[in-house]
Amino acid sequence: MTGRPPIGLTMGDPAGIGPELTYAAWHALRQTPAEAFVLFGDPASLPKDAPHKVIATPDQAWAVWPDAIPVMQGIRLTDPVQPGVGNPAHAPAIIDSIARAVAAAQAGATGGVVTNPINKYVLRQGGFIYPGHTEFLADLCGVPGHEVMMLAGPSLRVVPVTIHVSLRTALDQLRVDEIVRVARTTHHALRRDFGLPSPRLAVAGLNPHAGEGGLMGTEEEAIILPALSRLRQDGIDVTGPWPPDTMFTPTARADYDAAICMYHDQALIPLKTLDMDNGVNVTLGLPIIRTSPDHGTAFDIAGRGIARPDSLIAALRLATSMTAHRSPP
Amino acid sequence: MTGRPPIGLTMGDPAGIGPELTYAAWHALRQTPAEAFVLFGDPASLPKDAPHKVIATPDQAWAVWPDAIPVMQGIRLTDPVQPGVGNPAHAPAIIDSIARAVAAAQAGATGGVVTNPINKYVLRQGGFIYPGHTEFLADLCGVPGHEVMMLAGPSLRVVPVTIHVSLRTALDQLRVDEIVRVARTTHHALRRDFGLPSPRLAVAGLNPHAGEGGLMGTEEEAIILPALSRLRQDGIDVTGPWPPDTMFTPTARADYDAAICMYHDQALIPLKTLDMDNGVNVTLGLPIIRTSPDHGTAFDIAGRGIARPDSLIAALRLATSMTAHRSPP
Repeated sequence: MTGRPPIGLTMGDPAGIGPELTYAAWHALRQTPAEAFVLFGDPASLPKDAPHKVIATPDQAWAVWPDAIPVMQGIRLTDPVQPGVGNPAHAPAIIDSIARAVAAAQAGATGGVVTNPINKYVLRQGGFIYPGHTEFLADLCGVPGHEVMMLAGPSLRVVPVTIHVSLRTALDQLRVDEIVRVARTTHHALRRDFGLPSPRLAVAGLNPHAGEGGLMGTEEEAIILPALSRLRQDGIDVTGPWPPDTMFTPTARADYDAAICMYHDQALIPLKTLDMDNGVNVTLGLPIIRTSPDHGTAFDIAGRGIARPDSLIAALRLATSMTAHRSPP
Repeated sequence: MTGRPPIGLTMGDPAGIGPELTYAAWHALRQTPAEAFVLFGDPASLPKDAPHKVIATPDQAWAVWPDAIPVMQGIRLTDPVQPGVGNPAHAPAIIDSIARAVAAAQAGATGGVVTNPINKYVLRQGGFIYPGHTEFLADLCGVPGHEVMMLAGPSLRVVPVTIHVSLRTALDQLRVDEIVRVARTTHHALRRDFGLPSPRLAVAGLNPHAGEGGLMGTEEEAIILPALSRLRQDGIDVTGPWPPDTMFTPTARADYDAAICMYHDQALIPLKTLDMDNGVNVTLGLPIIRTSPDHGTAFDIAGRGIARPDSLIAALRLATSMTAHRSPP
């Protein structure tokens, strides 16, 4: 049907909104074989009315795709699923789904991994030791600490250098080396997976007005400018440090392909303000392609059919597009 | 012509874009007597082709308005103006313009003050001791330290609790008392000057995900929640602390009238991302109404006729609207 393997989609927490979004995403994409995915999960996790067919290898997905959700055999939930109620007994199957999807992508049997949301509290009770999805994937791929988080929306791509730490800790963690690592990884990914031969990176300042020449903070001169120098020595097209408040306007955004941001909300506020429902979380720095929707399990609305599939669909489409850029026909 | 006094507009730095924007704003508003302003400045600061007429008292503005920019008599520049070149010799006239505009507003001869941009480096060389406009106005009004900065755009109103300091200093300065003061002043102003009898305030968290129950920072529990309690005891409708990244989406914005933000860029990033050209700076907490455009003197483009008057026009219109709410006909 097509020369490129399908995307592997993990089950996520079966008590969350993942199953209903999986069904909705298949429904939205079923006319397009090039956008096929295969679910790594227990068929029992899917909504009752969702047509599905168990397959043995990902390349069987295309034959099934127009009529049913292709589901890889072998992942089993031991307890029944109650929408909205996290159950640690599901943890082994949730983890197994991720591990198998990663293995399939590493083997080239799928084009990449899209992950449905998990709940870290449920998984921790089931013995999961990672802070989140991303760290687990990096470990599975043998590159712990190499991961970089990008949030990509239709209007903007942002990459925070520090992430899930308090704002004070983010200030303490900000380092030349880390800015350089994150920007290099972003540059490399934009070239390889986003079809941008000459990526343009804009680096944010940390302080109001990017410090205004030292009047409002010294991190721009002490940390960010040295990082920019090193990146330029690598031949990377990088500008900054920009005043954070004016770098996300339409005019400013036209001048770069990704914004390297110093802390979580500097990146996430503009992204979500502009592209709330269509943001995709992309993990850069792994050997495999990995995207995920930019929301959680939403236990509070799970099973009611009101969750929006936009972000999962965008994550699947972006993974497909990245696969095509990485392995041109 | 109308029962309400005109707005007083200061000259600002005559070498900046203020004079050309003043002309453009008059041109845009001249059909509407209710939106009349009077310029407190030297007529020589205006572009050569700008029709103007010197008047002795603000109430003479209406007769002049449709045909010429009304200019209050008595403010004199001693040096000629060279667009784009700041000149400390202009400082006394720039300061005099502000002082007279404030005095006229305090006397009720104008409805409020709109300030054209100044350059603090030029003014400091001329002996000006204030960090900026706002502190000078608060001092002129006899309420130093009472000022609160609001940025108001068509989509969003934001009020930062800490402002022009480094991000690290902002963390150190965050106090229960200051959040309470800023929110109370905002609540009062929304009722009196914005026509909102029951204002709804949304208070941002400081950390990613508003700290996620202490996992990513403790300021929400130690500082922000106690401030919210005190505000609720005052009967103020206040919610929070909200995760900063999701509180500026269209859905979230529909639930509040102003966002109280913990630091400069948390407020300014969403405001400028959404409303770059139409943002207005409003000083709350003064006895007089004061707004200003949300940009500087722009010496680099002054005198070339390419600066956009949108923000000055929005500032004049908002001041007029605030005057109407404060003093209904």
